[in-house]
Amino acid sequence: MTSPPAAAAAEIPLAAWTRDLKQSSLREIHELLSRPGLLSFALGMPAAELFPVRAYARAAQHVLRTEPDALQYGLPVDRLRAHVVELMARRGVRCTEAEVFLTSGAQHAMSLLGKLLVTPGDTVVVEETAYDGMVNALRPLQPRLLTVPSDLQTGMDLDALEALLAGGERPALVYAIPEGHNPLGTSMPAANRRRLAELAARYGVPVIEDDAYGLLGYDGEPPAAVRALEPRWTLYVGSFSKIIAPGLRSGWVVAPPELVQRLSILKHGSDLDVCSFAQRTLAAFLDREDIGAHLARVRGAYTARRDAMLAALAAHFPADARWSCPSAGIFVWVQTPGTDTTALLRRAVEEAGVAFVPGRAFCARGGERGGDALRLNFSRTTTDEIHDGIARLGRLLRPSREGDALSLAR
Amino acid sequence: MTSPPAAAAAEIPLAAWTRDLKQSSLREIHELLSRPGLLSFALGMPAAELFPVRAYARAAQHVLRTEPDALQYGLPVDRLRAHVVELMARRGVRCTEAEVFLTSGAQHAMSLLGKLLVTPGDTVVVEETAYDGMVNALRPLQPRLLTVPSDLQTGMDLDALEALLAGGERPALVYAIPEGHNPLGTSMPAANRRRLAELAARYGVPVIEDDAYGLLGYDGEPPAAVRALEPRWTLYVGSFSKIIAPGLRSGWVVAPPELVQRLSILKHGSDLDVCSFAQRTLAAFLDREDIGAHLARVRGAYTARRDAMLAALAAHFPADARWSCPSAGIFVWVQTPGTDTTALLRRAVEEAGVAFVPGRAFCARGGERGGDALRLNFSRTTTDEIHDGIARLGRLLRPSREGDALSLAR
Repeated sequence: MTSPPAAAAAEIPLAAWTRDLKQSSLREIHELLSRPGLLSFALGMPAAELFPVRAYARAAQHVLRTEPDALQYGLPVDRLRAHVVELMARRGVRCTEAEVFLTSGAQHAMSLLGKLLVTPGDTVVVEETAYDGMVNALRPLQPRLLTVPSDLQTGMDLDALEALLAGGERPALVYAIPEGHNPLGTSMPAANRRRLAELAARYGVPVIEDDAYGLLGYDGEPPAAVRALEPRWTLYVGSFSKIIAPGLRSGWVVAPPELVQRLSILKHGSDLDVCSFAQRTLAAFLDREDIGAHLARVRGAYTARRDAMLAALAAHFPADARWSCPSAGIFVWVQTPGTDTTALLRRAVEEAGVAFVPGRAFCARGGERGGDALRLNFSRTTTDEIHDGIARLGRLLRPSREGDALSLAR
Repeated sequence: MTSPPAAAAAEIPLAAWTRDLKQSSLREIHELLSRPGLLSFALGMPAAELFPVRAYARAAQHVLRTEPDALQYGLPVDRLRAHVVELMARRGVRCTEAEVFLTSGAQHAMSLLGKLLVTPGDTVVVEETAYDGMVNALRPLQPRLLTVPSDLQTGMDLDALEALLAGGERPALVYAIPEGHNPLGTSMPAANRRRLAELAARYGVPVIEDDAYGLLGYDGEPPAAVRALEPRWTLYVGSFSKIIAPGLRSGWVVAPPELVQRLSILKHGSDLDVCSFAQRTLAAFLDREDIGAHLARVRGAYTARRDAMLAALAAHFPADARWSCPSAGIFVWVQTPGTDTTALLRRAVEEAGVAFVPGRAFCARGGERGGDALRLNFSRTTTDEIHDGIARLGRLLRPSREGDALSLAR
């Protein structure tokens, strides 16, 4: 063997676009969260105490006892597709099993839809402030990114979207979160959904509708999904993570049957389009349990937590702060004019023992937007913890009044 | 709403490279396999009767009973990484937990490694006849594909690879299956592994070592993995699918720690880099069970099946047929000069009730290569079934002699 080069492994030539990748902040945030006693409104985690663990355990045992091929390769589970069809009816969407494509979670659905629609260099449209999963999924395809603003009441700015389309842009996809927006906590009014559907059809632009929180509506039935209004141009993404449990890594797409077949080929290249034990167990769970009652239980708990957070913000945050009033989802977006929320996070953790995600983390183009905002999650903490934690954050934000009063009182 | 266009959903503009995608043959093959009474040597399925179902069920119950966050989001399980380090020692590889990256199966590992290494348009090198998963994973990145031949005894033709590299090619990756090759059933001699390692280091070319069958060696310990010889230029892919069960969708990469961090970011974009219930359960399973004893049991069963298939081929196949003698993995590759094995498959299913995969399916560039070859899987059938099925296939291949004799005998 000739003598090898002396340099270390980092000399492996990486794909051009990965060279400037920064280390993921996920582990840092997890490590932050793992501090004992920290009260966290940071990550978008559902409440583990609401997971149907016993029923899931029964379903798993049933599958392992009765299905000889429980752990074998197999086709994606038809029974699970039938259950998804029933869930979709709760979102106003009529579809068939042939339109349902099972994925390894909603993130995986978005990654596959990106591959389906985006040729490297194509244009895509996302909101300036949005869940960064879609952008991360698309990055290997190196798309050209266009953004549109969002309104804290009504979500995506459709005037801005229409201006882009009328100006000649024909993006490969528009990414929208009409219900329970992450991170903004907004829900699009029914009229806006109709307009988005109409724009998609008029300009021939596919909309990826991320509806991961669509089954978590708190003020009566949310408006129907955009997919219900425009089934030809809307590719719908759903997830079991927030309504059952994230550890199952299971989600779905609703799309025209001919695209489902193409997605199957793409998934085969990504992680094999085969049945997982989690899919079999989910199907058995949904065969045997009352999902409507389970959803009502989760919605009830989250409604109380949402209400607690809105009340606590009104009681403890400065008068000039503004926030969304979510009717679905698990987040409140708070704007605190003049406060650098990235700097605030360190103080919040170290001085108040409270965590959140600074708004800048959701700026699709990595700039300063959201620099004075916080994303607050309300699904994972009790109402008492919410009142306590928001009061502590509020004291950091209003030091001149309550902070002084507190130090005098000590 | 203005009246929408009349055309159907297929008008959604798809990524350029997907437009000529043919419908996946997976469902067709599964449907073929599901014919009652069919004896199948087709898919690469492990033997379900060897899955440690009871022990896995115990591990799942243990996790659900004792870990309050069993179904919650969480970081990839460190304990599982520690178990992978121990498994790697069985392949001659010394590594640390920081070099182990957990994936949703080996296919997912290959897809992520493709994204890490390949910029659209880059060159990649695969064997003319190889598991098509790597090519499928790379397709969205639209690489330029170069191929090298393979030898039925020694695997990848390293003279051809060296000629490409010496001629100035600098591929973004070389895809190799040194142990228990799928579909060829070859294992690279230790000297060839050293030469491959040396070529990778000399020319600065990363090798993706697909070792999904590396722990299924039948004739004593297989030679050490290429990763053991060249840790800087080899990115190793392992899988729990063949040694425990495929339904868990769990595999791993061994790579330098700085690349593990980048893979984590890429996985986050693909399907979130979080802990699944399957990961937790696998870790609990490996904590409590004797994996060495389990591997010995699987290897023992597969050795008997391999021996049965080689004996049956010698007894029943035409004298001019040639086949590999696998010392690892779950496949035998058979060349039957003058026989169109794609046409043979239909006859085999309809007249003999036997299935296999025609060699052409593994031609990396979609041409005619392998047109006279069959891939035979021996892991999923009993030794009696193997003797019976190979005899039936042999009668189709030798109609002039045994076929006539049989018809006289009836």
